[in-house]
Amino acid sequence: MPELAYVNGEVMPIDQAYVPVEDRGYQFGDAAYEFLASYNGSIFAMDAHLDRLERSLSALAFEPIDRDLVRNAIATTFEQAGYARAGIYVQVSRGVAPRNHAFPAGTPPQIVITVRPVPQVAETLLQNGANAITVTDIRWDRCDIKTVQLLPNALAKQQALNAGANDAIFVSKEGIVREGTASNLFIATPDGLLTHPLTPNILPGITRAVLIDLCRNQGISVQEAFFDQDALLRANEVFLTGTVTEVLPVSRVNGQAIADGKPGPWSRKLLEMLRQAAGA
Amino acid sequence: MPELAYVNGEVMPIDQAYVPVEDRGYQFGDAAYEFLASYNGSIFAMDAHLDRLERSLSALAFEPIDRDLVRNAIATTFEQAGYARAGIYVQVSRGVAPRNHAFPAGTPPQIVITVRPVPQVAETLLQNGANAITVTDIRWDRCDIKTVQLLPNALAKQQALNAGANDAIFVSKEGIVREGTASNLFIATPDGLLTHPLTPNILPGITRAVLIDLCRNQGISVQEAFFDQDALLRANEVFLTGTVTEVLPVSRVNGQAIADGKPGPWSRKLLEMLRQAAGA
Repeated sequence: MPELAYVNGEVMPIDQAYVPVEDRGYQFGDAAYEFLASYNGSIFAMDAHLDRLERSLSALAFEPIDRDLVRNAIATTFEQAGYARAGIYVQVSRGVAPRNHAFPAGTPPQIVITVRPVPQVAETLLQNGANAITVTDIRWDRCDIKTVQLLPNALAKQQALNAGANDAIFVSKEGIVREGTASNLFIATPDGLLTHPLTPNILPGITRAVLIDLCRNQGISVQEAFFDQDALLRANEVFLTGTVTEVLPVSRVNGQAIADGKPGPWSRKLLEMLRQAAGA
Repeated sequence: MPELAYVNGEVMPIDQAYVPVEDRGYQFGDAAYEFLASYNGSIFAMDAHLDRLERSLSALAFEPIDRDLVRNAIATTFEQAGYARAGIYVQVSRGVAPRNHAFPAGTPPQIVITVRPVPQVAETLLQNGANAITVTDIRWDRCDIKTVQLLPNALAKQQALNAGANDAIFVSKEGIVREGTASNLFIATPDGLLTHPLTPNILPGITRAVLIDLCRNQGISVQEAFFDQDALLRANEVFLTGTVTEVLPVSRVNGQAIADGKPGPWSRKLLEMLRQAAGA
């Protein structure tokens, strides 16, 4: 089955999908996006993703978009592609206009969607845990808006790969541990789970929110509070969460073992809780 | 004459120029750019722009590009468009690949160029001076690399327009005056001219460099040093510099008059020096 793209109402193979060079997404990164995934042919947390997309667009002062149109475009393209475990990328840019920093007037947003299979997290990675490095967070101050201002994320991810690690963890100049390059981060401590609070410096992850809800419903303690790199390295467990990442244990940070260097019970338990909630 | 675009070797009208949706420039802002301008049919400071483009691409760990190919592409597209005062936008992205934060292997960079007339700075604006507002600098920490991570610049520019001003001036959280949304900033003090030093937080502007050279050759004092918002408001003159902006006096900041609220002699003198150097 083909990997499909949707561009402003038309569906086509991804490699035939094009946008104008003066799309503001291309020249200014003036675009918001979402990444959804399906389990067993059902898209997970569609409404949470649409809510967040609307919040991103509102924060950027976009013209409102038709939520039903976007939902139908996602559903239709996903169904045509026909993958059980699909990754659905949805990008909304401010539209096409002669290059000028100021917002164009009366220009309709461009909606682009791509659908392809989600790469499954390797079982060996789940069993051994990932290696991560820490990098200074040099991103802009509105990482809570899910935009394509992602060059620092790409640079950090590549820096991790070049160092023989799987991913990078952003740490603020003051030493606060933020999140991964495409995921949120939790640690397990003797007093419960801990993750960065929702501030302009991290993404309000859907998986993060789902896991916090699931934990609290089961009486598992999750604190949203700041912690530093020392706390990260001293944690009983470290794990990353996200739509593609799901719940990924991190067993080494900057070459140093987390606890005994093996994934612990919390990351596995939360992965099971997430997959159960998602109908996997 | 038509407004032209060049895309990887082909020249066409801008509205027929497209890039794949999986160009990393579109999905990650993973692209560097330059904006050149011509005076009287001659492109100004071509080599300085090519040098900076190469520095940007190197800082982003792009594969090296063929400088002569880019130079010829710029020259050819510019000549075909045939404008005496043209604005030439050159964007080099890391290429087209299935969406993944990590750099793709062996993917050639995409080169896109557009050429259209430069909007001339209105003489009334030069005579009255521009109104500016200050905004907190929320950009990433590598503004010295000329990339399309420009959403905060677009948001700040629009915020200025919404406030009835012409442009916004970025001020760091510590109060250091950085630059405009698409220009560098100078102030005139009784002891000479002052502009932000070259650090990762501002663009190393070509016009800025040309003006500093011209001033020093004529014995005009220019200091590259940090100054705060108080110094900005107390300055004898404030002006913005850039390829399109040229030298634009700012006569009001946050509604407050700079000196007597009229452009002073330095901005006009530097504009004349610049235009003379550029063959205008």
